[in-house]
Amino acid sequence: MEKQALHIIKVGGNIIDDESRLKGFLEHFASMPGYKILVHGGGKVATQLAKELQIPQQMVDGRRITDKDTLRIVTMVYAGLINKQVVASLQALGTNAIGLCGADAGLVKARKRTHAQVDYGYVGDVTEIGSARIDALLRESLSIVLAPITHDGHGQLLNTNADTIAQEIARSMSSLYHTVLIYSFEKAGVLLDAEDNSSVIPRIDPALYAELKQEGKIFAGMIPKLDNAFQAIASGVGKVIIGQAENLPMLVNGHAGTTIVP
Amino acid sequence: MEKQALHIIKVGGNIIDDESRLKGFLEHFASMPGYKILVHGGGKVATQLAKELQIPQQMVDGRRITDKDTLRIVTMVYAGLINKQVVASLQALGTNAIGLCGADAGLVKARKRTHAQVDYGYVGDVTEIGSARIDALLRESLSIVLAPITHDGHGQLLNTNADTIAQEIARSMSSLYHTVLIYSFEKAGVLLDAEDNSSVIPRIDPALYAELKQEGKIFAGMIPKLDNAFQAIASGVGKVIIGQAENLPMLVNGHAGTTIVP
Repeated sequence: MEKQALHIIKVGGNIIDDESRLKGFLEHFASMPGYKILVHGGGKVATQLAKELQIPQQMVDGRRITDKDTLRIVTMVYAGLINKQVVASLQALGTNAIGLCGADAGLVKARKRTHAQVDYGYVGDVTEIGSARIDALLRESLSIVLAPITHDGHGQLLNTNADTIAQEIARSMSSLYHTVLIYSFEKAGVLLDAEDNSSVIPRIDPALYAELKQEGKIFAGMIPKLDNAFQAIASGVGKVIIGQAENLPMLVNGHAGTTIVP
Repeated sequence: MEKQALHIIKVGGNIIDDESRLKGFLEHFASMPGYKILVHGGGKVATQLAKELQIPQQMVDGRRITDKDTLRIVTMVYAGLINKQVVASLQALGTNAIGLCGADAGLVKARKRTHAQVDYGYVGDVTEIGSARIDALLRESLSIVLAPITHDGHGQLLNTNADTIAQEIARSMSSLYHTVLIYSFEKAGVLLDAEDNSSVIPRIDPALYAELKQEGKIFAGMIPKLDNAFQAIASGVGKVIIGQAENLPMLVNGHAGTTIVP
């Protein structure tokens, strides 16, 4: 029997922060037929809340150092505020969304990161995806909305990169579904000129990626995302597309954004 | 076929606030066999966060007036922080918990409260329980952990009383399960003397309740809980017990607390 399609869509912080762009994105997401999972990032709400609570924030290579107070903040903002607002919006749009974090139903287990130079605090790297459980929820006609908070199985919540969670879920679900992984954000795709949305590279394979990286033509912030994307495509994910959240229908159809080619 | 038992357990704010009492309660909850749902209140964390953010809080008859900023706070604290910490703890104890609010999977729909004298703000009264969906999740061997945030089906989250949610779920699930509703909190049960845990009334029926109320012997804070309990027992719930969270196994067995009798 042919595998059914499963779309795993990551939506980035800049969309989450912008009420009207988020609304447009969620309308597109709601109108997509079939099995779908939305993984959302955090946006500036957590940073803003930390500021109001006078909890200093420190970023290293785009990752948030997550001390105990910061973990409380990201748990509240990602798994509480953003997750539930997105779910309520999708419910209003007729999508039976269920908002979860990685601890729920044991969906995403992680290990506290250890690093020789940097103490990232309560940051977790994914070790296990509860793919049977995800499958069961999808088959109940539920669309999963996942916040980037995981757990270590011993009672500790961990802050985890949403791009990586999306990639790990896509990989893990590939034995059961034809997986399509979409990284959607504020840019039109992988750009040759970070400021020019018309400079989208429509297709990128490992050779071109290596070349562009060497020439310094890949924006630094894109590199972890592209590394994730190539890892995904190399390990069974059917399709990986990077592009603008508001273009979701065209990304799904492959008529916009950057397609990652093995 | 005989109906299977479903325990719906509400745990109150004073237990949530106390790390060691919460731990003891969750160990008991985790060790209970069979189908179970945990509905948790909020405790003082929301009030504390509001204070830190300088958002004035107003209570009327024990209910929190929920303006827009306060709704953000309770959504973060109840559906984010508390819900996910409880889930992670239960996962560590071997219970496959799934943390949800009323918007998730459309489990609890509510209507924004209108009141002639008081503007409660974003407070919701329950209108509909997604009992088929709750049943499906329970049959996936998941234990539901529910935060007292609901939605109106049009995208609006609403703050809703956890006692009432527990009661409405118990009522609604009674056609499918033999329901046992347990209100667990810091007191040993319904007390004749609010300060004396040895003054527990072991059984209370509507006649005794009316008599005690008339004599002013029921602590004012207990009246909404008891009204909820009598409503539940009058509408198909198999058993209602009120008692101390740390005594959960004895409450379940009917060897402690106050049993509500029709």
